[in-house]
Order: sequence, then structure tokens, then C-alpha cells
Amino acid sequence: MIFTGEMYPLLAVFAADSHTKLLLTLFVMFVTAKLFAEIFERVKQPAVAAEILAGIIIGPSVLGWVQPSELTSTLAEIGVLFLLFRVGLETRPSDIFRVGLRATLVAVLGVIVPFIAGYTLFRLWGRPQIEAIFVGAALVATSVGITARVLGQMNVLGLETSRIILGAAVIDDVLGLLILAVVSSMAKGGVDYAEIGTTAALAIGFTLLVALVGARTVNKIRHRVEKLRVGQAYLVFGLAVCLGLGLVASYIGVAAIVGAFLAGMALSESTEGTDMPMQAEAVTEFLLPFFLVNIGMQLRLDAFLTREGIVLALLVTFLAAITKVIGCGLAAAPLGFKRAMQVGVGMIPRGEVGIVVAQLGLGMHTISDLAYGVVLFMAVMSTLIAPPFLVPLFKGEQQTEDDMLPISSLS
Amino acid sequence: MIFTGEMYPLLAVFAADSHTKLLLTLFVMFVTAKLFAEIFERVKQPAVAAEILAGIIIGPSVLGWVQPSELTSTLAEIGVLFLLFRVGLETRPSDIFRVGLRATLVAVLGVIVPFIAGYTLFRLWGRPQIEAIFVGAALVATSVGITARVLGQMNVLGLETSRIILGAAVIDDVLGLLILAVVSSMAKGGVDYAEIGTTAALAIGFTLLVALVGARTVNKIRHRVEKLRVGQAYLVFGLAVCLGLGLVASYIGVAAIVGAFLAGMALSESTEGTDMPMQAEAVTEFLLPFFLVNIGMQLRLDAFLTREGIVLALLVTFLAAITKVIGCGLAAAPLGFKRAMQVGVGMIPRGEVGIVVAQLGLGMHTISDLAYGVVLFMAVMSTLIAPPFLVPLFKGEQQTEDDMLPISSLS
Repeated sequence: MIFTGEMYPLLAVFAADSHTKLLLTLFVMFVTAKLFAEIFERVKQPAVAAEILAGIIIGPSVLGWVQPSELTSTLAEIGVLFLLFRVGLETRPSDIFRVGLRATLVAVLGVIVPFIAGYTLFRLWGRPQIEAIFVGAALVATSVGITARVLGQMNVLGLETSRIILGAAVIDDVLGLLILAVVSSMAKGGVDYAEIGTTAALAIGFTLLVALVGARTVNKIRHRVEKLRVGQAYLVFGLAVCLGLGLVASYIGVAAIVGAFLAGMALSESTEGTDMPMQAEAVTEFLLPFFLVNIGMQLRLDAFLTREGIVLALLVTFLAAITKVIGCGLAAAPLGFKRAMQVGVGMIPRGEVGIVVAQLGLGMHTISDLAYGVVLFMAVMSTLIAPPFLVPLFKGEQQTEDDMLPISSLS
Repeated sequence: MIFTGEMYPLLAVFAADSHTKLLLTLFVMFVTAKLFAEIFERVKQPAVAAEILAGIIIGPSVLGWVQPSELTSTLAEIGVLFLLFRVGLETRPSDIFRVGLRATLVAVLGVIVPFIAGYTLFRLWGRPQIEAIFVGAALVATSVGITARVLGQMNVLGLETSRIILGAAVIDDVLGLLILAVVSSMAKGGVDYAEIGTTAALAIGFTLLVALVGARTVNKIRHRVEKLRVGQAYLVFGLAVCLGLGLVASYIGVAAIVGAFLAGMALSESTEGTDMPMQAEAVTEFLLPFFLVNIGMQLRLDAFLTREGIVLALLVTFLAAITKVIGCGLAAAPLGFKRAMQVGVGMIPRGEVGIVVAQLGLGMHTISDLAYGVVLFMAVMSTLIAPPFLVPLFKGEQQTEDDMLPISSLS
């Protein structure tokens, strides 16, 4: 174990111990992630999977060098916030609206199919109804961070399918929020329709409002930002909007990353040609490894290491992957088989969204430790499965797609 | 109080509370800091002082919106680490060696004079000897972050006096470390010369080693970094070196920021012309406000709000400022009055270094709550006092100085 006091004999007199531990944690997480990424890149595998794998290996399941803590999850949260902000900066609102209907259909089918599959499996397995509902709910929401990172690194964010995925992930998050509200109410003994209605109205209203008038508002106040005296005014303004809309989204109950994505989209037109996108990229580049490594560190093999647990974990993970491919793929079928597969596979990762649902269920004593461990395994594994399939699916698309809008041609 | 549960009625069902709190803390700190900075810039006052002031106002002493926590201090530490890395990137090792002797003299006199003054004041005030020694030690080490930020914003980091300040701050930190080792040993009942000798040798050895061979080593492996497949290889490499040398410095007992500064210096030649300095600047721009606001939040007026406390706090703060100006100014006197004043005032800020010493003393029960509050006040106020004097002292220097080496002309 690296983190024991005996490692710092010299520091014994200096109270600086916690500083050293912090730096050690940051260093180990960042450098291991990037070493794995380098190795994966050399064998043409996605860096995203490499960094999650780094987390599994240095985390409690294998080496135990770093434990998930408030620090790691804080850096992870800020990291994924900036990632989605950065992705939003490359997405014009009109790009999303153009694919709006298709994205809605992808989101709806991608919510219904996994929910029914998860619920049915747990009922057939002989588990209580409320646990089956929670596991179904944990299978619902796509975590768009992983896919966004892979698409961004392959430079295919401008593709129609990429936009469908981004749009569907936002809608999917609002739907996931509503399902979560319903199941939480059920677990407490009764469904409060008024509260759920309020939450739904707020979430949908916020998303539509920012998507519809955000860009126009930013364009209107752009000249004021230019006149600011504070250093790096565009970057400062962008960070403030990102944090602010992330906060509002989180307060309403939608994931903060949806707010950050909308913030990026609102700023996408007015920051073209400035240094801001590149600066946001640099901040993301530093913070994102902590998000990916932190996902890997969540894996707890000891939570389900029984014969039943292993079988259930593999089954749920398989279902999680296949139901998104089927549900979302069906909705995207009119685009042709390859694009339908791109959309379906792109929606597989659950990441931290599934973990949050499972933690909520555990806190309410509605799901067992076994189901919790199984959902955690599914959440981590689904993020690890998707990237290696995404890379070949999108390969060569940068050149051939007709409706692609490369970033460099936007200005 | 913003952070109470009643503020989040909608979130009651969603366990997402801690996410929202985190975002709220980040948003309030970042936006308040930047609002104050904007106002100060408009009345031609330094943004650094504005952001510290923002911390005092939103911190526990005034509004109590945000409390200093592990989260805020973590972000603060990473922020100042990147600031010094960024400053190091603009400093060639040869620039520091050219002013080495002068910087050493500045550091030594700037340590001796404040120590004697602090010790004498507390003895005359009738306080115990060990407390007087701790207060003297807390007055020793300059916190170079504040001055570096002001100099960087004024674009005068290339000046001879700026280099003397940076060099002296590094040496001063090593000296401060040794004094701290001595007083800690004394507080424990005996001085362990062997241990102090080891610490001294390690600290001096590390600093000289990195300063002397760091740049050459980086230049040698530069072509390997260029061949890396991982995205943004230069930035990733730079961040890894920054965290790594910060960690080693912290492990040895020197401040981590000295390691980060040396890391930047080692990379300064090989990253010219790349995007890396600008990317490091973006990361700094996001994280630095948390450092400055966190300094302000440390102020606890309630710790010394007696007649004796107020008088002592003002006296110690005055002594802290004037002794650095006299000690460092004397050492820099051969450069002329104006430059001597630049160096002296540039060395005033104590910031987190003084706070660490005071916390150590409090933990060892060698200083009273009163002395602790007084040192905290001195540390925060010294960071607030220096910038408004630095701005006029360095005004117009960018154009007139002969030996200035602007960054843009280096490539």
C-alpha cells in the first residue's frame, strides 16, 4: 500500500503529509491513465478504454494503490463537466434540432427496451419486484461522456449519427430522471404525481429554453464580453456559463453534464475563431483522466464474487449492451444498418448514471448488496465494452460522410 | 446560509445533493472572484488582490457563503502548482543562474530580518520563547504565487528584478524548510542535527539537480515525446513532469510549488513554439481563482478580536511587510533604489506558507490561539498589501528595461 505513513519518514516533522498524499494520488492516476492510453493507442485500441482499465488496475479491485474518495470523485465530476462543455462547443443548436425527431425516438426506445429487459430478468431470477424495478431503472440512462470522448478523438462529432447520439443522450437523461422520480416515489410507498410533474416540466423547460434561446442570448451579449477587462475574458465567461448552467441543471435534477453540454452549445457560434475551444480542451485534457480512472476504480469484484453473482453480472452486462443496440438501433434503422449500429453502440455506456441509481437504491434499502455489485459491474463494463466497437464502426467516416461538418470548416 | 438542505426541495428524492453543493461552491468561488477582478481592473487595481478580497467576503469572516474545506484547499493547491509551472515555463535556467548570487543574498537577508523582528516583538510582548520562535519562523518564507501572478499579468517576468525575486523565493523556501525543521525539533525537546542535515542535503541537492540538468534531460528526450501516440502529447508530458517534480519536492519537504516551478523551467526551452504554454495557462486560469479565494477564506477575524489581538495583528503584519522590504531591499541595494524596492515589495506575500507554520505550531501546542489568529491575519493581509504596491513599482518597465527578454522574442 502506497498511502501508509511509513512511506514519508522525512515528512514526519512537517505536517505536509496531506499535500504529498494529494500529489501522489493525482500523479498515480494521471500517469497510469496516460501510460495505458499510450500503449492502447500503439495497438490501435481506444484510449478511453485504456484509462478506465487503468482505474480498475490501480483501484481497490486489483492493486489498491488509490481508493475512490471525495477528491477523486470531485475531480471526476469537474472533468466530465468540461468534456461535455467542450463537446457542446462543437455542436450548433441547429445541428441537434435537425435530428430532433430521430434522437427522441432513439432515446425513448433506448429507455423502454433496457428497462423491460432488466426488470424481467430480475423477476425471472426470483428477486423482489421493487429491486427488479430499480435494476431496470439503472439500465436506462446512457452516460454520454465515454462516447463523446471517443467520437471527439476520432474527429467525427460532426456526423449525423454523432449528433443523434448527443441529442438522444440529453433526452434520455431527462427520461431517466423521470423514471428515477417515479421509482423513488414507489420505494417510499406512493407516487407523488404533482412532484413528478413539476420535475418533468422544469427539466424539459430548462433544456428547451437553453437550447432555443441560449445561443441567441450569448450572441447578444458577446460584445459586452469582449469589453471585459478581466484577463482571458472569453475563457472566464465560458467557464462561468458552464458552471452556472451545470449548477442549474443539477439543481433541477437533470445531470449537470446536460447543463454543461447546453452551455457549450449556446457558446458554439460566438466562440468560433477564438482561443476558447482550445483552452477548454486543455482544461479537459488535464481533468478527464480523473473521470475515466474514477469509473474504473468503482468496480468492486468482492461485492458479487459468488457463482450466482458472476452469472447475474455477466447476464445484466450483456443485456445492458444488447438492449441499447436493439432499442436505439431499431429507432435509427431507417438510416441503414451501419448507422443504426453506430447509434446503438454509441448509447451503450452507462457509467456514473447507473452507479448513482444503484447507490440511491442501496441507500433506500430497496436493492440488495448483490444487485448493487451487479449494477456497478454493468456500469463499469458497459463503458469498457463500447469504445473498441465504436472505433471500427466509425472508421473512415471522416472522409466519406456527406453531411459532415468538420470543425475547421465552420469558421 | 446557502448550503442548508432546505434550499434543494426538488433534490430531496435524488441523492444528487453533493453534486449540486460541489457545483454551487465552484460557481460561487469562481464567479465572485472574477466579478471582483473585473471591478478592480476597471479602477486599475490588481486582480490578484480582488480575488483574495472576494475570498474574505464570501468566506467565514463576512458572509459565510463558502467554508474552507478539503475541496477548496485541494483546488487551491492544484491551482498554485500550475501557476508556478506556468511561470517556470517562461524562465530559462540560465536566467536564474545569472542572478544567483544576488538572489541568494536577497533570500538570506529576507529570512534573517523578519525572523529576528518577529521573535523580538513576541518576547517584548511577554510571550513564551517557543511561541516567539514559531512566530518568527512563520514570518520567514515568502509565498511566491501572489507576486508571480502580478508580474505575469504585467508581462514583466523577463525583468532582472523579477528573476531575482523568483530565484530568491526558491532559495527562501529551502531556508524556510530548514528553520521549520529546527524549530519543530526544538518544540519536541531536542534538535536532531543528523535529520536536519539529511533534509538540507536532499532539498539543496534536488533543487540544484533539476535546475542544472533538468532542461538538458528534457531536450534529450524531446524527440521521444514528439513520437508519443497519446493525444496532446506535449501537454500530457508537461502535466506529468509538473505533478511528478511537485510530488518529489513535497516528499523531500520543499514546497510542491518549487518542484512545479523547476519542472516548468526544465521544459521552458523545449516547449517554445508549441501550444503547451497557452494550454497550461488555460488550466491555470480555471484553477487559480480557487487558490486566491481560498487564501481570503482563511481569515478568521474571531480568532483575535480583542484589543490586544488587534494591536498585535496589525503590528505583526506591519513588521512582516517592512522587514522583507528592508532585508531584501538591502541585499538588492546595489541595483538602485527602485529595483531594490521592487525586490523588497515582491517578497512581502507570505500566504499559505505562514499559515502552514502556524497550523504546525498550533498542532504541537507551542503557540496560542491568539498567536495563530495573528499569523493567519498577517499571512492573508501580506498577500493583499503587496499587489497594489507592485503595480506602480513595475509600471512602464516592460518598455524601458535593457536586459528584458520578452517571451515572444525567445523563439
